[in-house]
Amino acid sequence: MQNHDVDTLLDLAIREDFGQIGDITCEAIFTGEYCRARLIGKTRGVLAGKDIFSRVFTHVDHHTKVAFHCDDGQIISPGLTLASVEGKAQSVLSAERTALNFIGFLSGIATQTRASVEKALEGGNAVILDTRKTLPGFRALSKYAVKIGGGANHRMGLYDMVLIKDNHIDAVGGVSEAVRRARRKWDSRFKIEVECRSLDEVREALAAGVDIIMLDNMDYTDMANALKLGTGGVRFEASGNVDMEKINRISSLGVTYISVGMLTHSVPSIDFSLQVEVKGTTKRKP
Amino acid sequence: MQNHDVDTLLDLAIREDFGQIGDITCEAIFTGEYCRARLIGKTRGVLAGKDIFSRVFTHVDHHTKVAFHCDDGQIISPGLTLASVEGKAQSVLSAERTALNFIGFLSGIATQTRASVEKALEGGNAVILDTRKTLPGFRALSKYAVKIGGGANHRMGLYDMVLIKDNHIDAVGGVSEAVRRARRKWDSRFKIEVECRSLDEVREALAAGVDIIMLDNMDYTDMANALKLGTGGVRFEASGNVDMEKINRISSLGVTYISVGMLTHSVPSIDFSLQVEVKGTTKRKP
Amino acid sequence: MQNHDVDTLLDLAIREDFGQIGDITCEAIFTGEYCRARLIGKTRGVLAGKDIFSRVFTHVDHHTKVAFHCDDGQIISPGLTLASVEGKAQSVLSAERTALNFIGFLSGIATQTRASVEKALEGGNAVILDTRKTLPGFRALSKYAVKIGGGANHRMGLYDMVLIKDNHIDAVGGVSEAVRRARRKWDSRFKIEVECRSLDEVREALAAGVDIIMLDNMDYTDMANALKLGTGGVRFEASGNVDMEKINRISSLGVTYISVGMLTHSVPSIDFSLQVEVKGTTKRKP
Amino acid sequence: MQNHDVDTLLDLAIREDFGQIGDITCEAIFTGEYCRARLIGKTRGVLAGKDIFSRVFTHVDHHTKVAFHCDDGQIISPGLTLASVEGKAQSVLSAERTALNFIGFLSGIATQTRASVEKALEGGNAVILDTRKTLPGFRALSKYAVKIGGGANHRMGLYDMVLIKDNHIDAVGGVSEAVRRARRKWDSRFKIEVECRSLDEVREALAAGVDIIMLDNMDYTDMANALKLGTGGVRFEASGNVDMEKINRISSLGVTYISVGMLTHSVPSIDFSLQVEVKGTTKRKP
Amino acid sequence: MQNHDVDTLLDLAIREDFGQIGDITCEAIFTGEYCRARLIGKTRGVLAGKDIFSRVFTHVDHHTKVAFHCDDGQIISPGLTLASVEGKAQSVLSAERTALNFIGFLSGIATQTRASVEKALEGGNAVILDTRKTLPGFRALSKYAVKIGGGANHRMGLYDMVLIKDNHIDAVGGVSEAVRRARRKWDSRFKIEVECRSLDEVREALAAGVDIIMLDNMDYTDMANALKLGTGGVRFEASGNVDMEKINRISSLGVTYISVGMLTHSVPSIDFSLQVEVKGTTKRKP
Amino acid sequence: MQNHDVDTLLDLAIREDFGQIGDITCEAIFTGEYCRARLIGKTRGVLAGKDIFSRVFTHVDHHTKVAFHCDDGQIISPGLTLASVEGKAQSVLSAERTALNFIGFLSGIATQTRASVEKALEGGNAVILDTRKTLPGFRALSKYAVKIGGGANHRMGLYDMVLIKDNHIDAVGGVSEAVRRARRKWDSRFKIEVECRSLDEVREALAAGVDIIMLDNMDYTDMANALKLGTGGVRFEASGNVDMEKINRISSLGVTYISVGMLTHSVPSIDFSLQVEVKGTTKRKP
Repeated sequence: MQNHDVDTLLDLAIREDFGQIGDITCEAIFTGEYCRARLIGKTRGVLAGKDIFSRVFTHVDHHTKVAFHCDDGQIISPGLTLASVEGKAQSVLSAERTALNFIGFLSGIATQTRASVEKALEGGNAVILDTRKTLPGFRALSKYAVKIGGGANHRMGLYDMVLIKDNHIDAVGGVSEAVRRARRKWDSRFKIEVECRSLDEVREALAAGVDIIMLDNMDYTDMANALKLGTGGVRFEASGNVDMEKINRISSLGVTYISVGMLTHSVPSIDFSLQVEVKGTTKRKP
Repeated sequence: MQNHDVDTLLDLAIREDFGQIGDITCEAIFTGEYCRARLIGKTRGVLAGKDIFSRVFTHVDHHTKVAFHCDDGQIISPGLTLASVEGKAQSVLSAERTALNFIGFLSGIATQTRASVEKALEGGNAVILDTRKTLPGFRALSKYAVKIGGGANHRMGLYDMVLIKDNHIDAVGGVSEAVRRARRKWDSRFKIEVECRSLDEVREALAAGVDIIMLDNMDYTDMANALKLGTGGVRFEASGNVDMEKINRISSLGVTYISVGMLTHSVPSIDFSLQVEVKGTTKRKP
Repeated sequence: MQNHDVDTLLDLAIREDFGQIGDITCEAIFTGEYCRARLIGKTRGVLAGKDIFSRVFTHVDHHTKVAFHCDDGQIISPGLTLASVEGKAQSVLSAERTALNFIGFLSGIATQTRASVEKALEGGNAVILDTRKTLPGFRALSKYAVKIGGGANHRMGLYDMVLIKDNHIDAVGGVSEAVRRARRKWDSRFKIEVECRSLDEVREALAAGVDIIMLDNMDYTDMANALKLGTGGVRFEASGNVDMEKINRISSLGVTYISVGMLTHSVPSIDFSLQVEVKGTTKRKP
Repeated sequence: MQNHDVDTLLDLAIREDFGQIGDITCEAIFTGEYCRARLIGKTRGVLAGKDIFSRVFTHVDHHTKVAFHCDDGQIISPGLTLASVEGKAQSVLSAERTALNFIGFLSGIATQTRASVEKALEGGNAVILDTRKTLPGFRALSKYAVKIGGGANHRMGLYDMVLIKDNHIDAVGGVSEAVRRARRKWDSRFKIEVECRSLDEVREALAAGVDIIMLDNMDYTDMANALKLGTGGVRFEASGNVDMEKINRISSLGVTYISVGMLTHSVPSIDFSLQVEVKGTTKRKP
Repeated sequence: MQNHDVDTLLDLAIREDFGQIGDITCEAIFTGEYCRARLIGKTRGVLAGKDIFSRVFTHVDHHTKVAFHCDDGQIISPGLTLASVEGKAQSVLSAERTALNFIGFLSGIATQTRASVEKALEGGNAVILDTRKTLPGFRALSKYAVKIGGGANHRMGLYDMVLIKDNHIDAVGGVSEAVRRARRKWDSRFKIEVECRSLDEVREALAAGVDIIMLDNMDYTDMANALKLGTGGVRFEASGNVDMEKINRISSLGVTYISVGMLTHSVPSIDFSLQVEVKGTTKRKP
Repeated sequence: MQNHDVDTLLDLAIREDFGQIGDITCEAIFTGEYCRARLIGKTRGVLAGKDIFSRVFTHVDHHTKVAFHCDDGQIISPGLTLASVEGKAQSVLSAERTALNFIGFLSGIATQTRASVEKALEGGNAVILDTRKTLPGFRALSKYAVKIGGGANHRMGLYDMVLIKDNHIDAVGGVSEAVRRARRKWDSRFKIEVECRSLDEVREALAAGVDIIMLDNMDYTDMANALKLGTGGVRFEASGNVDMEKINRISSLGVTYISVGMLTHSVPSIDFSLQVEVKGTTKRKP
């Protein structure tokens, strides 16, 4: 999907690597050669980011051709060829690192999400959600990678869902008053979620008529009790320092969602390599 | 230091969180209250990013005041208050997540760098270097965080040092020819580094007169032998899948530099919290 | 509220009037004079746009001072002084037309909205809503003016609420299927509204569990019958070629909302004048 | 004609409607369908804006094809098909509202201009002119629509003609001195027009040698007398609260121009509809 | 005067000198020192560009203070101190070259213009005009420098005066037809000038009623004869490879204007130096 | 080579010439005619700038076709046809002046560089270098033209080589200390050059181990003596008010480089003409 912010980030990424001078190594080495390159997986993981990977190459040189042999979401295994890249050797090699930086990061997110989703399914039916703890500039891309990994997206930003947190509650003196204000202003336009720190707050939120209740940093017992209070269509989201070990157990309690901040700010990148074969000095025009 | 690219990223980060509508939760909850907030460490680490943290708040509302009680590079410990933030409650809470996303990521890099530097010093005198494997858009900020952690910066981009890699070498038929081309074009303006995969290539590079030799994915024995070949002012950089266990040993061999890609693409963020105290409805103008 | 799009429109408005050369008349006439000017209402209406009015003057010359004696929402009457503007005569006169163009247009929207709101209250309790039929570039400003006039805002754009219209329904074969798709994808994040053309569609929409039902171009009888079908918290919005005469009657039927496209695309501007008193050649620095 | 400002406005219009998330309704409903749509007139009027209408669709998706069956300036009648649009259903429906907002507004201007021109021709030969009272950001588009409606353009902005108004005259002590200053500075480069409030000012302006004299808010008798004073090639422009009733009579007096501010700030939009026929799920690539 | 294009050029100039890394020499040398510097003339000339000179320093560091002791238009003589600059040594030295590049170029234009004006006055009363032969991006600045040197500005661009040249004339079959088209379209809004290559064309232009006649590449005799044909308020501009030697003689013929392209594309820069005195390490905050 | 800054300058150049209104002369004259034009040299020189010349035309109208019959670096002679341009007459003539302004300026630099290179080769083997004394916004283009003329590029900006100048030296108390600081910070990444004003400073610089020594404003004797001190791979650059007369002699002394600021700020443009043949009113679509 076309996204102005992703264009800005892509442009920024290329400018910061090229500077005003460009790739001085390639400029000294090459004299017009063409090359064919293959994108190859080096570790196991879930592919995410083929579109932005391709756009790095074509942004640097719109004659470069990138063809993927698979879709985002496919399992990467070591040695598997995922895509081929063809074009001027200088164009391909200059773009290589930025393209790998994007796809490695996004595949890292997708891979970790997939693992979380599997853990959740072992325990129950909880859906894995992302958070707003994304690296600045990567909101749209990171949330895309979470979907590719089998997770679902929480709100995109501050503007598309009301999420009343502890600071908001304390500022107005309680859950009921906070929800009342939010409903009065936005009930007809936006969903309302409330972060609850205790069973009492859960009861208040239910009485106030919210759409989603976030169980914030609760222990297993409190979560289980909170879920018993649920009525109508209200949904429960478990949140707060969720790690891989806890997901299975939380899911088994019956929550609808488990949100995992770590997915978008603390996952290792997936390692890929671009194997390049420079083809003589056949200066054929592409 | 003023940097146009960092401004672009900051602007992008705020726009992607606010959208066209802004923080709908705060808009419903607050009626002009002021607040005082404290930035508090939650885990052990090295602080990096106080400037960009502050700028997020002032970009959202230039009346908000941020005061740090320490400098980048200081050790964070759980519970330690690092900074105070004062301003309109809505402005502070709307900016909170983006500011934390920046400082958590950069402190993660600084923390991991510090650990790497300590490992290297246990073994010898090797300097820890970063690479171009930075997340897109974060080149300048990530390299800043590496310096804060005690590391040094490798080249900033494709444009400020010649780095001849395997693909370049293979394309022209050998190290000697590749270096010859680079020297002819850039010798008076740029340093030249060559990535060597074998002792033979190291010998070629030395004969060709380069400034730095990268020992790429060599085992300890080959590295040790390569170092013995060194003459004049040439420097050696160990590179390739370097992890914490290997740093100590590689450093003990006597290389000048160890470059560690993982520092800027695969480190966990450091966790901070912003504890906010909303102050009645005292609408005093700041 | 700070809004990037409004900044862009303001900048565009000034550039299109100044061109590369600037105000050639003022440049020939003035030699550094200062002036004091008063913004005066010429017809009856509701004021909207004092902030953007002020920003035009300070964008042209940040030394110019604008002080309003009233707030947006106040009734304008002929001859009433609303604000004073002080600064260099050239700066004030060059900015005058653009500032008046903004405030006249926005006050026109607020005035017409106020009239619609009054009509609705004569008949019942229906809330007047705006639509997406805003002039391009004026989305945020126009919706602000509607609020000032006493109306409420429908969704801001395509991205903050699901609104299933006739084309969507026909494309998938019916209301039920369209709602099913929307709920599966967005139920946890976004409110869902459906545009219904008949009582049968209203029944389908109610069964499918939507938040808001738009009664599209229905006659009074159908609207009344539709409203009787309502259950739970569902809300009804009357829409389609609503003009001043119909609002009273529609409101009396008991709908929650009446949306009026005309408010933001077909209202006459309110006429203001800026009475300027140029003060000798007292070149005192402001 | 290519125009940087129009590009900016178009981009702004699409961004404000899509936000960061895009069209969530279409995203839920469609699975790759194509559609054919027809632009149809709903009321009588003059078409203006076919180019910008088309560019909205291709800006959203450059695969969408728009073909007009007529040119700007043609009479629209209810039911008449004016253009066809083909492309992915999601692309077409997401762009629909913004495209209609542009063409409806511009056609409104052209329609009202045509009516004014006809009124003027009933009385005499006066040419209908626009003013600088255009909605911010719409200067070029609005003036284009006036030309389509048969009017002519007054100056484009502050920079392409000298127009000495009452405030300028009062600031320097009279028409003669104001014109003297303008001629000294710009006589060789720009035309000079003076706004005159009385016959005495008209006499001064004629003596000072201006190109155009604006008769500002004069009654019919004063206008007639002013016209008798005219000598050489000087032209007269009637201005000030001109409405449809007065145009005929003013034109009959023999003025060259009648400028009508209302044309670009207070006209109702023309109503169009886009009738869409979604075509199965034939996912043929366009 | 505020000018968006000059801002763009200034920003571009600083970015191209700083790149992404900044001034690496100053970064290594300085540790927070302050300095006082003096701008000193090195050759004789006319000063132009003090505003843009100052803005370079404040764009790099808004704490730097620049104070000029004279105005644009003043005669520079070797050794004369023109301005003082105070601020952080690193900020001042990093901005120095860009600031000198601007002021040297603009003073070069002003100096050459002054010389041309003096030559013209020796022969008669001809006014020296610039042309559109300005270096790309420098249109506004170059024309400003011409005014400072005592010249006047020809049209600013393609958009503010009609100038019918040989290609236009040939395309439509003659001067009369070309002028007829221009008058029909623009007579009420723009001045019209025609480039004439012969006395016959001059006669045609006079008959067609133009404002200015350009005598293009004519010899002295033809120019003199053309001037004798002049009637009414028409003005004559001599143009075409005018150099210093010819100006005196052309002026004596009685033309109103002499346009000199060379002024803005082929003049040597004026040499200035910035003498810097670094002041210990007194790290006082400015 | 793709360069973001050049794009910005090109866009700026076209905007400043077109304004918001465009080419009013062409708009009045032409009715859709096509033309064929030839770029012809008028004086002797070296061609530089064919790419940017072409891009001006296609930026104005992407249908215009430009075909060069030669490459940058070729000798221009009066009357020689260098390129052909085909397209709509209005598009070609509107773009003509901006395109000529670019190519004339860049060819002026290349021409003067060629002359300097020839002078240098008469005396010895010195390479002609440019400086940072380029016109703001023209850094990349000017340095490109110098290479076309046979010169070499000095550093691109403040960021790609350390150049320690007199002010830096004085600030820290001498050459040795200045070089020590630079080496400590940047030795592994950047080349270091020092500007020396005396033989003593040359000796200090040599002892400190720099890459290049600039002999600043020295007389021939001092230069000769300095060169005798050279050891290892150090290079010498002569600098300071170098003009055509001195180049030969300086080159004969044996310096490696002679840097000539005048090349990029004080050279006359080369004169070209575009001969246009408008072709009837054959409105064939290109």
